[in-house]
Amino acid sequence: MKIAILPGDGIGPEIVDQAVKVLNALDEKFELETAPVGGAGYAAHGHPLPEGTLALAKAADAILFGAVGDFKYDTLERALRPEQAILGLRKHLGLFANLRPAILYPELAGASTLKPEVVSGLDILIIRELTGDIYFGQPRGVRECPDGAFKGQREGFDTMRYAEGEIRRIAHVAFQAAQKRDKRLTSVDKANVLETFQFWRDIVTDVHKEYPDVALDHMYVDNAAMQLVRAPKRFDVLVTGNMFGDILSDQASMLTGSIGMLPSASLDANNKGLYEPSHGSAPDIAGKGVANPLATILSAAMMLRYSLGRPEQADRIENAVKAVLKQGLRTPDIYEEGTTKVGTSQMGDAVLKALA
Amino acid sequence: MKIAILPGDGIGPEIVDQAVKVLNALDEKFELETAPVGGAGYAAHGHPLPEGTLALAKAADAILFGAVGDFKYDTLERALRPEQAILGLRKHLGLFANLRPAILYPELAGASTLKPEVVSGLDILIIRELTGDIYFGQPRGVRECPDGAFKGQREGFDTMRYAEGEIRRIAHVAFQAAQKRDKRLTSVDKANVLETFQFWRDIVTDVHKEYPDVALDHMYVDNAAMQLVRAPKRFDVLVTGNMFGDILSDQASMLTGSIGMLPSASLDANNKGLYEPSHGSAPDIAGKGVANPLATILSAAMMLRYSLGRPEQADRIENAVKAVLKQGLRTPDIYEEGTTKVGTSQMGDAVLKALA
Ligand SMILES: CC(C)[C@H](C(=O)O)[C@@H](O)C(=O)O
Ligand SMILES: CC(C)[C@H](C(=O)O)[C@@H](O)C(=O)O
Repeated sequence: MKIAILPGDGIGPEIVDQAVKVLNALDEKFELETAPVGGAGYAAHGHPLPEGTLALAKAADAILFGAVGDFKYDTLERALRPEQAILGLRKHLGLFANLRPAILYPELAGASTLKPEVVSGLDILIIRELTGDIYFGQPRGVRECPDGAFKGQREGFDTMRYAEGEIRRIAHVAFQAAQKRDKRLTSVDKANVLETFQFWRDIVTDVHKEYPDVALDHMYVDNAAMQLVRAPKRFDVLVTGNMFGDILSDQASMLTGSIGMLPSASLDANNKGLYEPSHGSAPDIAGKGVANPLATILSAAMMLRYSLGRPEQADRIENAVKAVLKQGLRTPDIYEEGTTKVGTSQMGDAVLKALA
Repeated sequence: MKIAILPGDGIGPEIVDQAVKVLNALDEKFELETAPVGGAGYAAHGHPLPEGTLALAKAADAILFGAVGDFKYDTLERALRPEQAILGLRKHLGLFANLRPAILYPELAGASTLKPEVVSGLDILIIRELTGDIYFGQPRGVRECPDGAFKGQREGFDTMRYAEGEIRRIAHVAFQAAQKRDKRLTSVDKANVLETFQFWRDIVTDVHKEYPDVALDHMYVDNAAMQLVRAPKRFDVLVTGNMFGDILSDQASMLTGSIGMLPSASLDANNKGLYEPSHGSAPDIAGKGVANPLATILSAAMMLRYSLGRPEQADRIENAVKAVLKQGLRTPDIYEEGTTKVGTSQMGDAVLKALA
């Protein structure tokens, strides 16, 4: 089986290196092939998602992705900026289901800005639709305002849209994920204002008929943002659209205080997927050997579970990560007094050792 | 000067009663006229925003609004549901600038789910554009999907749009608010994905030239949702569009743990405004005399400051509220051991006494 390795920019290469070490340490060997993406893609081939990189991603069984973005590419026109690579990969590969667990490891409970009793034991899964909504909807652009009080002025505009089939397939993913967990699903929408999300609510309600064992509730996005602060543990699985999911999944990951620990998976209809840490490229600390590689290592574990059919290997890696936390090893982002501060590759080595 | 009193549903009437007591206790007398809105409007006249209520709101110098919504109206078709009254008032009266302070009163620091050091002294102001964006953009609806992989299926769709003049006027409100505070403004957008918000960023940057004394930064909405959890005190004033503002202002208010304390103002171009508590109609506790009236009383104070030109009276009311908190009086939503639990009208009476 072939894995495309796309390290990207900033801390991407150094954290992906650690995950590659872990993959190479497994008994079963995978074919790994690396290609540049994001700013690195632009630097090498003039485009954030070079043709060769896209071809590799298409040919591979799974993709391990680091992170993209660096200050030096901020002034490029939008179509050439690093984050276009992520949007392009999602769209070209049909990666419509984004799974973002927000888990608080007991050893790291102190890292959260929330009170321990509010977040200890937090274990929620946010499922974000990733190829539809206002992210890709046409028409969009800047035009002359066609009506109303500002008629004739310039206006920016975008189109939010969700087709029935798009909602159905992400709803199935969400109900099935809930079945494997606590069997509770919260669908987040804005049905009181948006036609798109009244339609979303209707379709999710319809799909629910096929999953009578799952308890479904509907919540407005503004209320969901409040409940994630007030009582995040009340949730099990949340499912929502691309735009709301962008906001809520980042909010939820920050509740843990340790975004350096959180993996993510973006899956297509056949469980082929792109795996990446939930955090960004952190160009300010790139190359210093201090970045936390655990989210990327845990992303590799998710890859083994969801795309490569190797759940035992995934378990092994996740247990190794828990073991190094128990040993008290911490990269600077999760360091607390009384623990041992280590760098990126020391942390990777410790996971290797715990695996063995 | 004439004030329209729109109590609405749920706890609306009982909390508005307390604010009316406070207004009547001021030396200067205002003409107060009451009309039904929301579910109460529907019950009385078959529409959540009856014509007479809209006419009163138009004729008045300011509007004091309670809250709308009740379980019993949940099954009505969308156009008749209580919240349509809010959307209608905003649109018909041109209330484009929503000001939502998120303040943590020192006496209530324990009520937050965040650690005291993260939120103590929190004092941020969220300015949400309120009459544009995807809330009102046409076209919208459910149609046959015109293109792409789901062509021919049904799809829900909405239009996000912001005209130049709409962005300019809310930017001016935000820069001027920042000038009166710590002179720092964060404009929240999603310029990396949305044309509307790249345009928003360009216009806000242009308006900034007129306010060189204010420090402006731009932040993506997903990052803003994270920073509000990680380090909310880093913000002074935030400005954003209608949809993002809906989510972030609710998230921010929940950081304080005491949404029963937070007022809001929605202003038109001439500082005429609608004032309402940030919280909802809480039908589950309606009529029990336990709702916290302070957000509504503080909304009346904002009204005196922004629409009625009586800043000294606003100060007096705000100081009276601080005094009752110092006295240890608490409605159940903010009660802690060692304080004195009081009901809605006792709390209103205590504010009256502190005013005198
Ligand atoms: C970089 C950006 C386009 C992207 C998004 O908005 O989806 C990012 O925020 C994410 O969540 O992966
Ligand atoms: C009730 C609803 C239409 C409204 C909104 O989304 O604006 C509410 O959430 C608010 O923030 O005032």
